[in-house]
Order: sequence, then C-alpha cells, then structure tokens
Amino acid sequence: MTTQQLYEQIQQKKSFLCIGLDVDLSKIPKHLLATEDPIFEFNKAIIDATHDLCVAYKPNIAFYEAYGIKGWKSLDKTIKYLNVNYPEIFTIADAKRGDIGNTASMYAQAFFEDMQFDSVTVAPYMGKDSVEPFLAFQNKHTILLALTSNEGAFDFQTQMINGKPLYQIVLEKSKQYKNTDNLMYVVGATKADYFEEIRKIVPDSFLLVPGVGAQGGDLKEVCKYGLNKQVGLLINSSRGVIYASDKECFASESRKQAVILQQEMEEILNQRML
Amino acid sequence: MTTQQLYEQIQQKKSFLCIGLDVDLSKIPKHLLATEDPIFEFNKAIIDATHDLCVAYKPNIAFYEAYGIKGWKSLDKTIKYLNVNYPEIFTIADAKRGDIGNTASMYAQAFFEDMQFDSVTVAPYMGKDSVEPFLAFQNKHTILLALTSNEGAFDFQTQMINGKPLYQIVLEKSKQYKNTDNLMYVVGATKADYFEEIRKIVPDSFLLVPGVGAQGGDLKEVCKYGLNKQVGLLINSSRGVIYASDKECFASESRKQAVILQQEMEEILNQRML
Repeated sequence: MTTQQLYEQIQQKKSFLCIGLDVDLSKIPKHLLATEDPIFEFNKAIIDATHDLCVAYKPNIAFYEAYGIKGWKSLDKTIKYLNVNYPEIFTIADAKRGDIGNTASMYAQAFFEDMQFDSVTVAPYMGKDSVEPFLAFQNKHTILLALTSNEGAFDFQTQMINGKPLYQIVLEKSKQYKNTDNLMYVVGATKADYFEEIRKIVPDSFLLVPGVGAQGGDLKEVCKYGLNKQVGLLINSSRGVIYASDKECFASESRKQAVILQQEMEEILNQRML
Repeated sequence: MTTQQLYEQIQQKKSFLCIGLDVDLSKIPKHLLATEDPIFEFNKAIIDATHDLCVAYKPNIAFYEAYGIKGWKSLDKTIKYLNVNYPEIFTIADAKRGDIGNTASMYAQAFFEDMQFDSVTVAPYMGKDSVEPFLAFQNKHTILLALTSNEGAFDFQTQMINGKPLYQIVLEKSKQYKNTDNLMYVVGATKADYFEEIRKIVPDSFLLVPGVGAQGGDLKEVCKYGLNKQVGLLINSSRGVIYASDKECFASESRKQAVILQQEMEEILNQRML
C-alpha cells in the first residue's frame, strides 16, 4: 500500500484510528475460550465490528509469540482475514525488530512476504544496516522507533548528543537512509510537547502514535502539532477499544469506543478544513 | 541455568564457544531438503557433532520466523532437542526483542517459559521498563545489546552523551535495573579496542561476542581485555562453523571448525592459568 492510498482511506473514513490487537487470553470474553482459536475469533469479531471506523490494525506480535506455534497460527489467520476481507486496511506488525544485514532481511521477509503485512515497527539501536534491509521492500513501510511513550524513554532517547536528544539524532540520521519514502516513525502520545520539534525534522512522514487513552496522551494536543498535509498521523488505541467489555456483546461495545474516537478525529479533520 | 553452572561447563570443556544456528535453507546441504524438517535435521546433526566443543547454541530467531509457522516448529524442535539431550548447554534466543511492560513480559514468557531458553537478547532503546520484565525471571538471562559489530553501530551507539558514548551509558544505566545478576551484554568482536573500557563498567558480567570469524574480529585481542574471573566471555561463531561444507559430511566438517576454535580457547585458558 502507498501512503497516498492510506491518505485516501483516511479522507474517506474521516478517521486516522489504528486499533491495536494486543490479545491476552486472560482478558477476552470467557465464552470465546471454548472455540478452537479464541484469539482469532476475538480479532475477527473486533475487526468486523470496527473496520469502517479505523484505517489500520496493529497486532502486537509479542502477544502471539507468547502462545507459541498456536499464537503464530492465530496471527497468520488474522492477517489473512484482514488482507482478504478488508484489503483497504493498513496493517502494522508491531514487532520492534532490529538486527543487521541478512538477519534484518529475514525479518522483513517474515512480515512483508510470508505474512503480507503493509508495515513493521523496527528499533534503531543497531543503525543504518539494521533498517535499510526493511526499507528495500517496495510499498512496504518501516516504522522506526523514535520517541516512545513509556517511562524508560528518558533512559536513552532523550539523552543529549551535541545539544540534541538522541531521538532527534535518530530522526535525522534515518533521513539519510536509502528509500526513506518507506519510513514512518513511532512517537508516543504522552510526549505531545515534542511533536513541534519532531515535525520540523520529519514534516512529511506518517507518525504512529501509541498512548492515547490507556497511557494518558491527549488526542487534540497531539494533532495540534502532529497533523500534516496528508494528515500524517495514525493514532493507536488498543486496550481502550478491544477490552471495552468482556461480555458476549464485546464487539459492539468495542465499536462504541471506536465511534467515540472516530468522531473526535472527524471533528478535528473538519475544523482543519475551515 | 546459573552463571556458576555455565562457568563450570566452560572449565570442563575448556571452551567458551557459542555456535550460532542461523539456518538458511539456501545454504544447507541439498540432501536435507528432502526430509520433513530440513532446518531441524540440519541443527540436530550440527549439535550432535559439536556439543562437546561448545558451551552454548544461539538460534538466530529471524531465520526461523522467516519460514513462518514451519520455521517456528523447527525452532521448537531444536530447543526441545537441546534441553532433553544436552541440558548442560546454555541456550540463547537471539531475538533482540525490545518493548515495554506487559509486552516485554509476553516476549519473556515466549522465550523463557514456552520455549525454555536460558537467555534472550534484548535491545535497550526503550529503556528500563523494556528490560526489567525479562530480568524478573529467575536463573534466566537477559543479554542486552551494548556495542554491536556492524557498521551501523557508529550511527548511535558510539555517539557521545556528556563525554561518554551511548553504549557506555547503556551499560551504566542497566546496572541500576532490578535483578542485574541476570544481565549479560552483547559486545561485537570487531570492537576489540573497546573491551578495556567495557570491563571497567561491567567487570563481572558475561559478554556475548559475535563477529569472530566472518565479521573479522580477532579472538586473542578480545580475550586480552574481555576475560574475567569466571571467563565471562561467550564467543559466537555462526557461518564459519555451520556452513563449513554443503556436502553429506557437513557435520564432521563443522566439527573440524569447532575443534579449531575450541583448541584456540583451550590454549588461551591454559596460558591464563600459568
């Protein structure tokens, strides 16, 4: 998928919502546990109930890996279900992979070719040769960790190098990589103050923004500096949407939460048009 | 496994060799491709031929992930084979995971509990709350990326923060985390000059050292400053050992390469005793 297609989807749905599929068997409705593949059944119900309100889904790979081969099967079924039934949706493998050369190519192959995700999150610590193998895939997107929403972000990401925090160095360096058209960035919503500086460095890139809702980020604050000509934001909500209820009606309750977020986004987009 | 048990194994075998199981179907002997699980058959043969010469095996997880569910099955069979037949061996999931809080716990669960690896490699970029969930597992080891052997290491890892390179800040900060007894570090062999500085910060920790052989690091150089009281080094060789030959006799050729490395190590350990 191209970023232009993603932008068109955003305009059509008046939404830049991404729904995080962080499926924890201890949190999903009990009646699903009797099915053969509870994780997939849960995802399928959530996707069917919310696909017209969001533009992206983001399975958090750890939650599938934790269940071993069974978990990978659930992930595989989920991405196939999305690609077959809702091909307009932008899919994100939240895997935060990071390794060099041919190892990076292997990870890219796993997510881009074997599973046919549109994008994957990647960690920058190992530098250029750990990122470029992902960028080599056409119309596939590499979402590089820049500034995350957790407390540990202050350990290294905000440490100053020649008067600039490390996350800005990451943004700047990454712009010199090959095929930067395929680059997006993770920027946590709890760091709304930082968006103005970030947009100076990467005015045109899409930013994947976790942390609205459960982690306390504020949507309007983020949009104030984060929006660009192509909207340029994917706001992720995971728990707030998918765990809206643990009753049989969970999917319609998730829809209600997604509607609230979509409407907030529509309002923001409409105001921007004025 | 405790580090004391690892040390005892090193003394017994007079080796601190780790063999990397980076299995690429395009590089393994052709006759194995006819078997039901070529990756596992290859690993099994290599392990049977070399287990008395090395103290650790390190499957590079990307190489399994790239083959989807089939790859995960091969990985699962490999780790079970190791744990059942050679329980004295230290096993390393080279996964370079890095994510926060409950996501990190999920990854830890996948590698430490579901697959029963002794250790996993972890990326530091997201800081404390992305590392501590791994450290919480007793007698399991978290091998944090500090200074890697690739060219991209200079992008961020050697950038100066208050007069110190980032990788040293990573080492220092990590020492303040909870359960640091379970911490080891990745330090690339191509950076032999750096070992003296690194040992000042982490004198007692085990260092996993990739890059001897294919990536051009020199074993004696690394040992000069890297060895500590408990030996404290795990020197990894992947391609140099496992792809010694692509003929039917590949396993015995791998053994020959492992013997060369083990003997170099024995010599170094003996000289040290004098």
